[in-house]
Amino acid sequence: MSTTDLSNSVIFPIGEVLESDHFNGTVWLKMLTPVGSACPIANVTFEPACRNSWHKHAGGQILLVTGGRGYYQPWGKPARELHAGDVVNIAPDLKHWHGAAKDSRFIHLAIEVNPEKGPATWLEPVSDEDYNKLQ
Amino acid sequence: MSTTDLSNSVIFPIGEVLESDHFNGTVWLKMLTPVGSACPIANVTFEPACRNSWHKHAGGQILLVTGGRGYYQPWGKPARELHAGDVVNIAPDLKHWHGAAKDSRFIHLAIEVNPEKGPATWLEPVSDEDYNKLQ
Repeated sequence: MSTTDLSNSVIFPIGEVLESDHFNGTVWLKMLTPVGSACPIANVTFEPACRNSWHKHAGGQILLVTGGRGYYQPWGKPARELHAGDVVNIAPDLKHWHGAAKDSRFIHLAIEVNPEKGPATWLEPVSDEDYNKLQ
Repeated sequence: MSTTDLSNSVIFPIGEVLESDHFNGTVWLKMLTPVGSACPIANVTFEPACRNSWHKHAGGQILLVTGGRGYYQPWGKPARELHAGDVVNIAPDLKHWHGAAKDSRFIHLAIEVNPEKGPATWLEPVSDEDYNKLQ
């Protein structure tokens, strides 16, 4: 991990390790907004090679990348490599995953859009075969 | 301005100078979300000593500070000094201002909550007398 990655990873608090069956490795989560916020925002830090399962959000989601190197992939399209300063606007009900590259942490703010439309729907894991094609 | 401030200021694109009567100096703005987004997000960069006028948002606002040094002040309360990593959750209709310290740029993401409730209402400028009390 480069010095740049390290400095970027601590802009917002790293929070606690998230215990979840929807990630294949270690991920840290810190909520930045109060419970019940109309605009829930989390700071999410993926350890290298950690990614979430395929999932979708009824109201959509926005990712603001603050550090590291990672990927976002919408269903049926190639994965997009992400770095600090990248922004991903994810449409409602679009199946996708995001997570770290093999050799880098990956840190993004995750903003839940229209949370009143309901929680995320979690689907199958990203296969090792698909993930291992990424550099 | 410290090296830290400089590196932090370029995480998200700086955009263009915003021409507005509601700021007393030079401010840069880059919208990070598409027109009509249910969750409008802007990257805002204040030059040193620049601040906005008192104002309020019908749906509320969230500030995520990514660099520099600045202030947020809600009406009737002391100003709060802000640095990278600070988060401000601003209630709907709460009169407030934000901007840079005298000797530093100040960079934050600004998230408009429930934009369908209407635009910001702009009020009087922050007086030099009040601003100059801040260090």
